[in-house]
Amino acid sequence: MTQPSPSSHYDTLTKHFQTISHFEHLSALGDWDQATMMPVGGSAARGAAMAELAKHIHELKTAPFLADTLQLAQDEMLTREQAANLKEMNYQFFQANVIPASLVKAKTELAYRCEHAWRDQRKNNDWQGFRPNLEALMALVKEEANIRSQAQGLSPYDALLNKFEPGMTTEHLESVFGHLKTWLPSLIQRVQHKQTGEHRFNIDSCSSQAQETLGREVMDFLGFDFTQGRLDVSSHPFCGGVPGDVRLTTRYDESDFTSALMGVIHETGHARYEQGLPINWRGQPAGHARSMAIHESQSLFCEMQLGRGSGFLSHLQPQIAKHLGSQLSTEQLTNIYTRVNPGLIRVDADEITYPCHVLLRFEAEKGLIDGSLSVADLPEFWAQQMSSLLGVNTQGNFKDGCMQDIHWAVGELGYFPSYTLGAMYAAQFRFAMETSLGSVDTLVAQGDIAQIFEWLEQKIWSQGSLLSTDELVKQATGETLNPDYFKRHLEQRYLK
Amino acid sequence: MTQPSPSSHYDTLTKHFQTISHFEHLSALGDWDQATMMPVGGSAARGAAMAELAKHIHELKTAPFLADTLQLAQDEMLTREQAANLKEMNYQFFQANVIPASLVKAKTELAYRCEHAWRDQRKNNDWQGFRPNLEALMALVKEEANIRSQAQGLSPYDALLNKFEPGMTTEHLESVFGHLKTWLPSLIQRVQHKQTGEHRFNIDSCSSQAQETLGREVMDFLGFDFTQGRLDVSSHPFCGGVPGDVRLTTRYDESDFTSALMGVIHETGHARYEQGLPINWRGQPAGHARSMAIHESQSLFCEMQLGRGSGFLSHLQPQIAKHLGSQLSTEQLTNIYTRVNPGLIRVDADEITYPCHVLLRFEAEKGLIDGSLSVADLPEFWAQQMSSLLGVNTQGNFKDGCMQDIHWAVGELGYFPSYTLGAMYAAQFRFAMETSLGSVDTLVAQGDIAQIFEWLEQKIWSQGSLLSTDELVKQATGETLNPDYFKRHLEQRYLK
Repeated sequence: MTQPSPSSHYDTLTKHFQTISHFEHLSALGDWDQATMMPVGGSAARGAAMAELAKHIHELKTAPFLADTLQLAQDEMLTREQAANLKEMNYQFFQANVIPASLVKAKTELAYRCEHAWRDQRKNNDWQGFRPNLEALMALVKEEANIRSQAQGLSPYDALLNKFEPGMTTEHLESVFGHLKTWLPSLIQRVQHKQTGEHRFNIDSCSSQAQETLGREVMDFLGFDFTQGRLDVSSHPFCGGVPGDVRLTTRYDESDFTSALMGVIHETGHARYEQGLPINWRGQPAGHARSMAIHESQSLFCEMQLGRGSGFLSHLQPQIAKHLGSQLSTEQLTNIYTRVNPGLIRVDADEITYPCHVLLRFEAEKGLIDGSLSVADLPEFWAQQMSSLLGVNTQGNFKDGCMQDIHWAVGELGYFPSYTLGAMYAAQFRFAMETSLGSVDTLVAQGDIAQIFEWLEQKIWSQGSLLSTDELVKQATGETLNPDYFKRHLEQRYLK
Repeated sequence: MTQPSPSSHYDTLTKHFQTISHFEHLSALGDWDQATMMPVGGSAARGAAMAELAKHIHELKTAPFLADTLQLAQDEMLTREQAANLKEMNYQFFQANVIPASLVKAKTELAYRCEHAWRDQRKNNDWQGFRPNLEALMALVKEEANIRSQAQGLSPYDALLNKFEPGMTTEHLESVFGHLKTWLPSLIQRVQHKQTGEHRFNIDSCSSQAQETLGREVMDFLGFDFTQGRLDVSSHPFCGGVPGDVRLTTRYDESDFTSALMGVIHETGHARYEQGLPINWRGQPAGHARSMAIHESQSLFCEMQLGRGSGFLSHLQPQIAKHLGSQLSTEQLTNIYTRVNPGLIRVDADEITYPCHVLLRFEAEKGLIDGSLSVADLPEFWAQQMSSLLGVNTQGNFKDGCMQDIHWAVGELGYFPSYTLGAMYAAQFRFAMETSLGSVDTLVAQGDIAQIFEWLEQKIWSQGSLLSTDELVKQATGETLNPDYFKRHLEQRYLK
């Protein structure tokens, strides 16, 4: 690699990370295309090309000159924002270098085999088949956690959390989730008791095309810029692409439009965050989204704070009627989208019961990493927790129990808390913006949605990773994470 | 770059060229996406990412170890096919290294500016604006031609031809095109004289969707494998992607289906060649298509030898009627698709007058490179040639004269002959296969098309670049390029 003659070490670094970003652009394109466009015959060559690309990106992120240059740049005169960018560069360098290549390779290969087998094992409720794979994979995850722990001076589980939520600790999560545990189960019961409205409706079948037209109109209402992104179809909805070209996907169920519609609203939240990241920092680590929880806060803001609110649904109702020929009233739509129904599956859970699924996984992951829970005891632990948190029975039902998520099957621990942190941040942002904008629900009902997104753009999106999560949230709302807002939101929506 | 410990220098090279191929896969994906899917907002980041990728591919192709390793591999025991692969590696290495980086950069930048300005200048018939840009660009093209000439021991124009047609010479082309010149203008006149059938038809407007459905059915009939490719829309039709995932495009004119339909047939010819390249050589230089003329021979085989033949059109007629509600008979379709009408524009030209457009450009390019024709004299030269070859007047009409093609505006000389060579090879292949298969037109009329493509697959596609063009054509047809078959084909079709 030839070095340019830079005016500073920091400049050398920005050029290098810009180069990395160009290759990551191609990686995002390859991923998106694979999920949406690629015919099956393309898969072997694509797999090989993507592996080559990943290897090249890893080489760039571990380039030998980086260690010294990152060190030397620390002593240069930098603006506050440049210093933040340098911090993120250090973080990326650390992430790419901390785990020895041999362990990365072993874990990647085992995770690939474990996931592949899991797809069938889950279908067949085959816990005995899955268990040894998961045990072998957990051993490598623990090894990873220990290496990260030593390098960062964090506990092993904190080190895993920090892959997704820099700065988050088990202690903090225990306090937040502990608080949640004191009121959520009883709230669920009260809501179920109170919930009397009709909840089964005849939903006429709607063509994918009509649903897509509606979806695009809703995206447009939510301010999605189609000159900077696309909507397509994939079997697992996601939001990909790059900031100037954000590509979200959904899947259509022609017998029930409600799921794809809310899915599009959710992904549009992710997409607007990406579209709103600071243009001046594009291609630099500081220009990336802050964390998984903040990302999820934006999708859940769209889905939960806006999308399932009656103001939004009253605005949507005529559009649904027009495009889908649906007879559902705003009240009926609200009943559908705020129905509380404790169930076995996390991804199908409603807004109130969802955090219970996360609580359970958080407790399990802590135990798996600190050794207080063995893989063998996982199903029993799962059944007890599901029973006590949600009153549902998963005894013997592994496929809808501890085998339901892909995360563990690929050896990814530490991610689950981000979902509920995101829901909490979303509520906190809404209450904060209401101090200046007034009721969000009222604004949305009037179609007056632009200022809501201006608030998010100014306070969250345009900040990229220039601030830590705590700084970001404090600057936006006056305080760091405060789960009371989430409670208030749920009480307002479900008990009023 | 870390070197593996290979069993031989040749093995080292195959690994290295495999790596290059992975990055070229990403380049093909980026190009296709840019033309078909990318929203306008993605263009800046994509441009930068693609430039970074091109730079990386160039670095790989000019890696310092290659010169010695290519040399050392020459002395290793190689199979005939490995030796052919090594020859193609040497050719790629030569192409990537022959022009100094400073000239590549200067030409790329000037070509970009020249093309950008040309888009408006052409619209405005602004020859005076275009001329100085073209003069500046021609100076760099001559510099490139001289460098290539010295490196290869070829004349400067031969060196440019060899970028697209390895082994082709000006002398050979002069003989082939000289022959053409003796009979083509009079053939055109005879056909025009003879041509009496109706040629203006009311073509009902057809939706893009209906045309696409028809296009897919025709692709299917032509053996295109949709598990290994796609059909999409772009403003300039092309065939891209990679062998296991070939992506062709078209554009639909809802007021006239005939153009998109023949466009799809043409691109399907390119696509089947790519899909049929030797699987064992994927990712290696010997696995690539042989040359531009051979590629064009496959598209023109589909379009001219099959697509515009009455057998094919009789097979197509009921499908057109079914999908587009068209009332056109096979005879009317044949009249449309074989109408001869000398005109100003190459890309709109019919099968018989097309070579005249190529002849003119070949003569002009030779003159521009050897200095016997100046850019300033180009319009006059153009007008004289068009008048004598086709009897049409381009005096003062620069935009439909020497400003009509993008090739020169981007400094690409030496490509045009490939189009007509392709047409000639296509005719030669058809006559050769008819010695064993009988009349192609009859087979197609019966829908019995598989053996035609088996012949092409066996003789052409599966050969990749394992043979030189002359060897390939001789092995397939018993002789090297023989333009008599093209003449015979045109006389059969247009004078019978």
